[in-house]
Amino acid sequence: MRILPGIILCLTSLTAFAQTEEPHSHRLARSLRFPDVPGYKVMKCDLHQHSVFSDGSVWPDIRVAESLMDGLDAISLTEHLEYQPHKADIPHPDRNRSYELALKEAKDHNLLIIRGSEITRSMPPGHCNAVFIEDANKLLITDSIAVFREAKRQGAFTFWNHPFWVRQRPDGMATLTPMHQQLIKEKLLDGIEVCNEGNYSDEALQIALDNNLTIMGTSDVHKLIDWTYGVPQGGHRPITLVFAKEGTIPAIKEGLMNRRTVVFFKNLLIGRDEYLVPLIKECLKVSSAKYLEQSTVLELEIENVTSAEFTLQNRSDYTFHGHSDIITLKPGEKTVIEVKTKDKLKAIEIPFEVLNAVHAPNSHPTVSLAGKIAG
Amino acid sequence: MRILPGIILCLTSLTAFAQTEEPHSHRLARSLRFPDVPGYKVMKCDLHQHSVFSDGSVWPDIRVAESLMDGLDAISLTEHLEYQPHKADIPHPDRNRSYELALKEAKDHNLLIIRGSEITRSMPPGHCNAVFIEDANKLLITDSIAVFREAKRQGAFTFWNHPFWVRQRPDGMATLTPMHQQLIKEKLLDGIEVCNEGNYSDEALQIALDNNLTIMGTSDVHKLIDWTYGVPQGGHRPITLVFAKEGTIPAIKEGLMNRRTVVFFKNLLIGRDEYLVPLIKECLKVSSAKYLEQSTVLELEIENVTSAEFTLQNRSDYTFHGHSDIITLKPGEKTVIEVKTKDKLKAIEIPFEVLNAVHAPNSHPTVSLAGKIAG
Amino acid sequence: MRILPGIILCLTSLTAFAQTEEPHSHRLARSLRFPDVPGYKVMKCDLHQHSVFSDGSVWPDIRVAESLMDGLDAISLTEHLEYQPHKADIPHPDRNRSYELALKEAKDHNLLIIRGSEITRSMPPGHCNAVFIEDANKLLITDSIAVFREAKRQGAFTFWNHPFWVRQRPDGMATLTPMHQQLIKEKLLDGIEVCNEGNYSDEALQIALDNNLTIMGTSDVHKLIDWTYGVPQGGHRPITLVFAKEGTIPAIKEGLMNRRTVVFFKNLLIGRDEYLVPLIKECLKVSSAKYLEQSTVLELEIENVTSAEFTLQNRSDYTFHGHSDIITLKPGEKTVIEVKTKDKLKAIEIPFEVLNAVHAPNSHPTVSLAGKIAG
Amino acid sequence: MRILPGIILCLTSLTAFAQTEEPHSHRLARSLRFPDVPGYKVMKCDLHQHSVFSDGSVWPDIRVAESLMDGLDAISLTEHLEYQPHKADIPHPDRNRSYELALKEAKDHNLLIIRGSEITRSMPPGHCNAVFIEDANKLLITDSIAVFREAKRQGAFTFWNHPFWVRQRPDGMATLTPMHQQLIKEKLLDGIEVCNEGNYSDEALQIALDNNLTIMGTSDVHKLIDWTYGVPQGGHRPITLVFAKEGTIPAIKEGLMNRRTVVFFKNLLIGRDEYLVPLIKECLKVSSAKYLEQSTVLELEIENVTSAEFTLQNRSDYTFHGHSDIITLKPGEKTVIEVKTKDKLKAIEIPFEVLNAVHAPNSHPTVSLAGKIAG
Repeated sequence: MRILPGIILCLTSLTAFAQTEEPHSHRLARSLRFPDVPGYKVMKCDLHQHSVFSDGSVWPDIRVAESLMDGLDAISLTEHLEYQPHKADIPHPDRNRSYELALKEAKDHNLLIIRGSEITRSMPPGHCNAVFIEDANKLLITDSIAVFREAKRQGAFTFWNHPFWVRQRPDGMATLTPMHQQLIKEKLLDGIEVCNEGNYSDEALQIALDNNLTIMGTSDVHKLIDWTYGVPQGGHRPITLVFAKEGTIPAIKEGLMNRRTVVFFKNLLIGRDEYLVPLIKECLKVSSAKYLEQSTVLELEIENVTSAEFTLQNRSDYTFHGHSDIITLKPGEKTVIEVKTKDKLKAIEIPFEVLNAVHAPNSHPTVSLAGKIAG
Repeated sequence: MRILPGIILCLTSLTAFAQTEEPHSHRLARSLRFPDVPGYKVMKCDLHQHSVFSDGSVWPDIRVAESLMDGLDAISLTEHLEYQPHKADIPHPDRNRSYELALKEAKDHNLLIIRGSEITRSMPPGHCNAVFIEDANKLLITDSIAVFREAKRQGAFTFWNHPFWVRQRPDGMATLTPMHQQLIKEKLLDGIEVCNEGNYSDEALQIALDNNLTIMGTSDVHKLIDWTYGVPQGGHRPITLVFAKEGTIPAIKEGLMNRRTVVFFKNLLIGRDEYLVPLIKECLKVSSAKYLEQSTVLELEIENVTSAEFTLQNRSDYTFHGHSDIITLKPGEKTVIEVKTKDKLKAIEIPFEVLNAVHAPNSHPTVSLAGKIAG
Repeated sequence: MRILPGIILCLTSLTAFAQTEEPHSHRLARSLRFPDVPGYKVMKCDLHQHSVFSDGSVWPDIRVAESLMDGLDAISLTEHLEYQPHKADIPHPDRNRSYELALKEAKDHNLLIIRGSEITRSMPPGHCNAVFIEDANKLLITDSIAVFREAKRQGAFTFWNHPFWVRQRPDGMATLTPMHQQLIKEKLLDGIEVCNEGNYSDEALQIALDNNLTIMGTSDVHKLIDWTYGVPQGGHRPITLVFAKEGTIPAIKEGLMNRRTVVFFKNLLIGRDEYLVPLIKECLKVSSAKYLEQSTVLELEIENVTSAEFTLQNRSDYTFHGHSDIITLKPGEKTVIEVKTKDKLKAIEIPFEVLNAVHAPNSHPTVSLAGKIAG
Repeated sequence: MRILPGIILCLTSLTAFAQTEEPHSHRLARSLRFPDVPGYKVMKCDLHQHSVFSDGSVWPDIRVAESLMDGLDAISLTEHLEYQPHKADIPHPDRNRSYELALKEAKDHNLLIIRGSEITRSMPPGHCNAVFIEDANKLLITDSIAVFREAKRQGAFTFWNHPFWVRQRPDGMATLTPMHQQLIKEKLLDGIEVCNEGNYSDEALQIALDNNLTIMGTSDVHKLIDWTYGVPQGGHRPITLVFAKEGTIPAIKEGLMNRRTVVFFKNLLIGRDEYLVPLIKECLKVSSAKYLEQSTVLELEIENVTSAEFTLQNRSDYTFHGHSDIITLKPGEKTVIEVKTKDKLKAIEIPFEVLNAVHAPNSHPTVSLAGKIAG
């Protein structure tokens, strides 16, 4: 029965939640949580999404509402410029239109809307995104190199989407073509998706590392985040954590341009050690360290302040009084590890390999958890 | 990364569920379940919904997918004819368009798509729906009576939407205006919503009873069913159960025209006794009746085969060995009531007032649960 | 591997909980919550329990731990004096022994231990409890009247257990025998269980009302509270809420002697109106009352501060903008009822019949919810 | 209100479950599930438990009921011979008494009761269990070596309990003393607990491997399994899986004597490779293997038929189209791994390191998952 302008519709839909029987804690539980790191705000971004303005199934207001529920800081609706299956109904699309509608919808919320577009080609170069652009309409250019030049002229950050897509790569193996090499060489291509929707690619990660590209992960959502990622059942969309100097659009762009990202995908953190390790150090905190009475068994309590479940492998010489070398730290919980130290120590430092994080294919970062011991 | 025609997108999105960690049983649990009754198929219908083709936020494929998840049998996308807030982007809408897109999307599924439209007026007569029409475009008529005549010429079933809407009735009290009386008298108005989105109206129910109108309940969804009704938290959309002679569109229309409906809204069943009572009799079945050993305490096991929770009030002279006069029967479960019969009986019949059902304002139907006693 | 005195064992077992993955909120959720009423502390009591010292299956420390988890204020371990199935192993029981062990276990906790015993007879008078006694051993008396006189000499509060027990009453129908009438007349019998384990009896409630007996409900637990009452699945044991002038054992006794009780059994509250109504008034609070913008629809927010789910039936002339006459208020939650008041009021008072409460067989108290309206 | 012999009490308590609102599936979910392996029945055993007959808090019937709920095949109530804190109440205990009561209780159930006792000493040798004995009373012998000789004369299987107990080893580090070396040399000590209650010890595992001792894990429960292990929150007690030639007590003893065990502790499997690897091969089954359409991406579906969650690390050269090298397989579920094979294969075999299993401190077994590919 609502006949209301868009922004109020969004508020109404969020209010609808309040009228259900869902306790407040459930709604908060959905929000993706990661801490800032020294020197940077960690911005939760999903820079590859679709609406009815290309081949998505929702109006931009739904994308804004989903992102607010997920606790994101910034999004981009990157409609296909060339692929317009709804053209019969939306005949003369301004390619900036979904950006403008999302911007209006997000006006009173803490959500940054970044203007972007998807450049849709067969392989090579396949699909690519240009974000932080000025005018999407001007990217309607036939030549595959020229379109990147125009995007760059507008100040874009560009990245290669799902280089492992079986429609374009029947073996699912991302490899660079000469055209990609040219784009990289000419500084026309800045990043590469290592995760897209339900897929992760070791090969794409290796390409990022070998070619100094920004590591990206996105939802590429077309239908609903809740359904595609099973959010009510505990799933989450892929996001890119951007290490930005401040919480602004230019700062996010600067972070992306300088490759300061970690991707969060199906509980896995993917990134370069220089960003991954400081992030994990902020995610896991020694909240208490004290000896069990009349013993040299140290109770080390570790708090996981994120919405990721961590799986750690002990890389110290200590053994534990209750765990093998593999330890699980549940999201938002405190876990006690009992460390057999033989002598009574004043401080402790234990290196762990972080199995739910990769800095290269099949390779996991090592992070030390350290704390002073009470008493 | 999908570039696919609409129908395949839907299948993909349903498949996405299968890839989440959600057990199969959860998905089935969502489906709304009501049994057929002797002589009729009970068709689960939601005949008032919106898409981007008027003021909704989703493409019609999402409405089809939501309805399949909810286990519905028939839906209608009833776009506002006159209210077109997306006109800037969808400038020349064929008013039949969302019907056609939904029809294509539902092609390979057991979901009937009924052509319909919302006739959008200030009060009187307020908003009304015409469903089972032939051409929505021909309903773009200024005169409020003439549009009903055209709808009827096309064979429509018509109903008054949310007569209690505070935007049009600041007291929330549905009352008939002379125009409504004229429409009813001329057989131009067949039904009335007693439930719409989150609202139920005793006054609207009384109007239905007094004027021989079909009792209707609809979601009037604009955003997402899951959010507006808190489906993951156990909520459900309002639906109209239509008692149809067979599972076809003409049979649903015939059932509606003959007022054979029960509405299911926030766990409440609303309808005329002649349909409500047979339905409840099929919903609740005595699955076992036997005496507790060496006693005259009868264990009466009742199975609730629906997705509604029933609350019954004992209207017999029997007392129970474990309950007061109020009994709750959870959805899909069996509940044992221990009846103190004093003598050993061969059969039993116990009248209950069904508190989660109304056949008139503040008035509940009485249904007898009966069974033969074993041994 | 523990070799520790009893009280420390108990603390260890409670600590064990803290080491599981159960969030803190779950443990609190288990605790039974009811508010005090003006003039009285509402004491949560379970005065009929067994341990290995008669026919129970646990040592008294488990009964203390269960009660602490359930948030009880006072318990009594009422071992059968005459029925000692563990006699082969516990040959010379001091009938005060389980009291003493429970007292020691509860020493550092807010749980009162009341000395009591079960007087175990065939019918009449059946089983009875004497609580607040001085020495259980002295109740080992053959004569059924004499034992009550001795209990009374010790200052006991006495009550008839499960008068509806099918082993002693194959029809499950509680009725007074001449012996019970004599006991009541001589003021030797003070109360009667209307609930015991999984049973509730309308006839027992009527006997309480007709004979001015204290209304009692107890678990009569023999095995584990968690299993018998399905606590992890949301169940609870029967308890007696005693309206005491302060939180002490003498004050509980004084409350029981003066019949100031309400029983909580399978979500049902059972008691005399003079205690039931003030309790319900404290359980349900109007937490906000304001008009929906530009309307005469009043949003009345009601907070249920208890662990009981309330089911209310509207007994006013108002109708609601979203509910029929039946309203459910979930434990610990706030629920909004939209009341159609026609005029803008300054204050409101709405009488409800409380269906999950009985003050007599098949009869429910009426409680008015009242509040001033904002603005 | 029950006055019934023990065995019926037990059945009543199990029936109580059926009367709660807990769906049948929840109760089954609790049962610990592991498959048999070729040549052996895999018997789920907990051979270290206490009742009120030493320092436990429950009568033996509760231990039987807990074990039935957990789906165990065999248990032993191993009361402390020397430590009798309930002596004041149970003054002349026959040390076989809890065995006899449990045996009676389990009579009509599929649960084997093994006669056993705990030999309770300060270090050395600390606490030890002797199970499959003939008469516990005859083990009341002061000399620490002589008691093992008597146990062996009776045909016992003996094992060292919690060698890492901080009360006896303040550093929590298990090491053999000369007395243990003598016991092992004289074949008086057969096994060693590597897990007890909440503790696991790498050092104890190493001692087992170095000295050819049977690897044991037990609950050592004193209070309630549900509370100590957080069963309603998804926890489980430690058990020993014994590879027995048939489902009998002598066959379990033969399996233990020949070191054919795997321990299941906090989701970790601990054992020698020769039993661990065949077990894991039965736990995880390739249930389907087929290529994604028009691609060389193989969809390998793996079914986890156990109640353990498996964490696997890819040790092949293949990479996956959706996972890093770490894969989680939830209990009772099927998981699809998409393998990029480059060529279309007829069959596949992928080695995985099983991180939730250890065959030595910090060392995990490798198991290959193999299957034929459809089409």
